[in-house]
Amino acid sequence: MLENIPSKIKIVEVGPRDGLQNEKKILTTDQKFQFIMGLIDSGITSIEVSSFVRAPKIPQLVDAPELFKMLNEAKIDRRKIKFSALVPNLKGLEVAKGANVDEIAVFTATSDEFNKKNINASVDESLGRILPVCKEAINCGIKVRGYISTAFGCPYGGDSSTETLLKLCDQLVKIGVSEISVGDTIGMASPLIVKKHIRNLKKHFDLKTIAMHFHDTNNMALVNVMAALDEGITIFDSSAGGLGGCPYAKGASGNVATEQLVFFFEQIGIKTGVNLTKLKIVAESVKSILSA
Amino acid sequence: MLENIPSKIKIVEVGPRDGLQNEKKILTTDQKFQFIMGLIDSGITSIEVSSFVRAPKIPQLVDAPELFKMLNEAKIDRRKIKFSALVPNLKGLEVAKGANVDEIAVFTATSDEFNKKNINASVDESLGRILPVCKEAINCGIKVRGYISTAFGCPYGGDSSTETLLKLCDQLVKIGVSEISVGDTIGMASPLIVKKHIRNLKKHFDLKTIAMHFHDTNNMALVNVMAALDEGITIFDSSAGGLGGCPYAKGASGNVATEQLVFFFEQIGIKTGVNLTKLKIVAESVKSILSA
Repeated sequence: MLENIPSKIKIVEVGPRDGLQNEKKILTTDQKFQFIMGLIDSGITSIEVSSFVRAPKIPQLVDAPELFKMLNEAKIDRRKIKFSALVPNLKGLEVAKGANVDEIAVFTATSDEFNKKNINASVDESLGRILPVCKEAINCGIKVRGYISTAFGCPYGGDSSTETLLKLCDQLVKIGVSEISVGDTIGMASPLIVKKHIRNLKKHFDLKTIAMHFHDTNNMALVNVMAALDEGITIFDSSAGGLGGCPYAKGASGNVATEQLVFFFEQIGIKTGVNLTKLKIVAESVKSILSA
Repeated sequence: MLENIPSKIKIVEVGPRDGLQNEKKILTTDQKFQFIMGLIDSGITSIEVSSFVRAPKIPQLVDAPELFKMLNEAKIDRRKIKFSALVPNLKGLEVAKGANVDEIAVFTATSDEFNKKNINASVDESLGRILPVCKEAINCGIKVRGYISTAFGCPYGGDSSTETLLKLCDQLVKIGVSEISVGDTIGMASPLIVKKHIRNLKKHFDLKTIAMHFHDTNNMALVNVMAALDEGITIFDSSAGGLGGCPYAKGASGNVATEQLVFFFEQIGIKTGVNLTKLKIVAESVKSILSA
């Protein structure tokens, strides 16, 4: 274990979207802007900023266009800092294009049961929705990231087999998705199943295109990260302050905290480029706003 | 990693001693008795019950003789359930003998600075104190467990090199110590240093006699456990509810929680014999008493 530690990893900060989406208190657009600017200042380079969903669906994220406008007007070196946004449909993609996103994220799951509760579509139906969005995004030079939820377990007893995961990855890659985030939606993963999934994934896919998205419900996020790292994964999703959870999955706690990830990576000799002190201040700041 | 998962591990529950010692609120002897009986009922088999220190030193543990009396009068299968107690000197050993302990624990550290603050003795002086205690205990058929604190870092800048650890282990083994608990007193350990220490330890010692004692200050306890397991360690200290910390080491949070350890081990296929539901109830119960 840890015999071949990669010299570089990529952290995808999902706090502003996946994190805030699941927090009750609505932040002002300026607070979100400050949050993201703080993340950038701490050294975070990949940020999922928001979601271009239908307005009433997720009240926290309805200000996505305004937030992107502020970010686009700010002094940010966009050769280094990459912004993404969740896009559920072609209408959302149109707004995303105007928002100058570097990447869009599309969503599905291994479990029909979960997918139906989450986006009111079976897995196959969700792929049907994703297809035209991907096509158009790629035509416009926008990369596509695909989320696969419930890959390590479904709260509604749905499918989370390796076979289904592989099939889904294959379908997403064929559609044109360039990075796949394999999600442990409710923190059910454990190191052996993580390793099993990844060993199978790497038979068919370049692991440089696969991210792991762990939740820390059972305090297992870091051991799962270590297991994934050991199998060759170098892209990890996390959210500053461990924000988030999942409104469609009872009992899910937040994403693994970015500051925990950074601390862990640095401790085992992986340079993250993130200033942990600054990051902790940003995380504490947003948590204190949310709990005020 | 995790290629050779052991079929059996040993969990040493240190909550009643190491855990409670560092909690401000003093439990009644009956509450401690109930705590220990609950642990036994949940399937825990090795328990560090208390400490036979000079009475005013650690107020929480002055009732050690009464607590052992209650345990000795209770219906407990002592072929299966093993009790230990911390013993600092010959006077303590005399009381321990009367208390029918299966094992005593003695204490030292890699760091002179820490040892002086903790037990007012340099490392060498502490070994001088341990020697007669060990001799007498072994003469009486009582096993001796040796704690080595600050093995992964000292809050006062003292020594925590592998060389010093190896030398200390050697000295303890020569004195007659049959199990050594290598302590990450303030949660400074990380997987690479854990692996380095253990790789060196196994060149000279049977790993079946070496335990790891991790604190969770930086959320690194479980990754350290996984790293240690990967190197062949099968004995782990923990405390129910993550009780404890270290009064002589500022900033140290509690021991890794036994319920976290059990959950982790079971998830990777190691049978612990512990009923997690029962254990969680016991842990919650003692935490609610402490916070009341």
